[in-house]
Amino acid sequence: MTKLLIAGTVAYDSLRTPQGERPRILGGSALHAAVAASILLKQVDLLSVVGGDFEPQYLDFLRERGVDLHGLKIIKESKTFAWNGFYEKDLNTAHTVQTDLNALTQFDPALPPEYLDNELVFLGNIDPILQTKIFAQLPARKFGALDTMNYWIASQKEDLLKAITLADLLFINDAEIRQLTGEDNLFRAARGLLTGRLRYVIIKKGEHGAMLISAERIAIVPSMPLDEIIDPTGAGDSFAGGFMSYIAENGVDWDTLRAALVYGTLTASFNVQGFGCERLAAITKADLDERLKVFREITRIN
Amino acid sequence: MTKLLIAGTVAYDSLRTPQGERPRILGGSALHAAVAASILLKQVDLLSVVGGDFEPQYLDFLRERGVDLHGLKIIKESKTFAWNGFYEKDLNTAHTVQTDLNALTQFDPALPPEYLDNELVFLGNIDPILQTKIFAQLPARKFGALDTMNYWIASQKEDLLKAITLADLLFINDAEIRQLTGEDNLFRAARGLLTGRLRYVIIKKGEHGAMLISAERIAIVPSMPLDEIIDPTGAGDSFAGGFMSYIAENGVDWDTLRAALVYGTLTASFNVQGFGCERLAAITKADLDERLKVFREITRIN
Repeated sequence: MTKLLIAGTVAYDSLRTPQGERPRILGGSALHAAVAASILLKQVDLLSVVGGDFEPQYLDFLRERGVDLHGLKIIKESKTFAWNGFYEKDLNTAHTVQTDLNALTQFDPALPPEYLDNELVFLGNIDPILQTKIFAQLPARKFGALDTMNYWIASQKEDLLKAITLADLLFINDAEIRQLTGEDNLFRAARGLLTGRLRYVIIKKGEHGAMLISAERIAIVPSMPLDEIIDPTGAGDSFAGGFMSYIAENGVDWDTLRAALVYGTLTASFNVQGFGCERLAAITKADLDERLKVFREITRIN
Repeated sequence: MTKLLIAGTVAYDSLRTPQGERPRILGGSALHAAVAASILLKQVDLLSVVGGDFEPQYLDFLRERGVDLHGLKIIKESKTFAWNGFYEKDLNTAHTVQTDLNALTQFDPALPPEYLDNELVFLGNIDPILQTKIFAQLPARKFGALDTMNYWIASQKEDLLKAITLADLLFINDAEIRQLTGEDNLFRAARGLLTGRLRYVIIKKGEHGAMLISAERIAIVPSMPLDEIIDPTGAGDSFAGGFMSYIAENGVDWDTLRAALVYGTLTASFNVQGFGCERLAAITKADLDERLKVFREITRIN
């Protein structure tokens, strides 16, 4: 498994954080995950949709990173999904000013023939019905992971619970898993979800780190300490992209999943050090390895 | 330094958690810290005050744990400081029903002669003016740590900031350090406090773990994952007591402080597995060592 299928949104984000603002920069769950995964992987297959306003320079940007665009549908007569939002001093909460779904309402999750051989798939935050449809088209799939958000928990809980049972791994944040399960204890909440195919839950806790939970085991890593967060948008998606790229290279045994948890953490730490994906797009595996040394020193137990 | 001076409150706690309720059980910042520290140490000097209603069985309990009571003043005509509170499902927030200061209003921080040789001191959450007075009586002091709470930050910020500059290490939780400094980034908040004698800040994040921060270095540990929290009361105090007992035995170089951070974390994890200090009082160093093995496996980075 040295390639990875990533499905989700590609967006224009207009955002404001305490560190500044940016109009119409590249965003979206699949975009952040793909930029992250392409640090390690030579090929990432992108399944998403954009509008006629999507700039050709961004297509070039993605192609140059090894992102295959056979599955990026461009709907000329529509516009790219656009999110407008801001963060207060508390960077953990995104406030939405406006969401224009635009082309996203026509997202057809049919995979192009070039993508059907994918063994590894990450489904970023989109309608869980679409996530289920994508899983159904991947007979060769060995490992599939799924992310979601509070919106789908509130509006399509049953669809989401079905999609989750088709995944091998669920990415979810601490507030979301409590909302989804009604269980306050995160370990009990995660283990209560392990039915169907689902074997692993990764709970993302933002500045507090992340936890990987299986029926028998737990791994916990803190976040990378940073003096300044420029823009938290896409942190979870880049975390997932980094995590998935690591297992694409190294396998899915427990120790590799543990190491991928660290790799995802470090990937996300670069993501939040710039607006959109600008910082992530500028780093290499060597930068991640360098930061890993610092991280080891911070987290080692004598 | 194989003994430790602990000052703070000894209380009767009447509390309710989602797991049950207990009237008038042993509590208080110094009590939880002393019970924790006496797992490792043969002698802990306790400086506190109680009322005539304090039961002799509790004095015996403390003496049997090696807690020296020369500094526990019993004010016959008063009552023991009493806290009545509860926790909702969200165990991170204690809700106070009633606080009766009682004997605590007459807390005279004069050290008995037997305590004047202490080189290591932990000042649990009490009036920062009292904390300052205790530091002033310890010419042999090599390392002093101080804990506080939101009440003092709101009501006596200047007194507290003065007491902090006299300490070597500050224990504080994430909400409190943000309240105290007005700085949202925890690393910048901690480093901004490092003036006077203060060299280390430990930020306690409850279920999210703890961080040790100096001018140049950072150590981060997650919390021990637990399927059930019985009673979070005294978690921070037992953390501090466990931490301080570890450095009493092993020194105050950076690597020992790091290891103490883990030791404090594990001590607190036992504290919250029973009401008041009942679970903590029942464990030995062997139980902590056993849990350390599990914790290492959960937190190791390949």
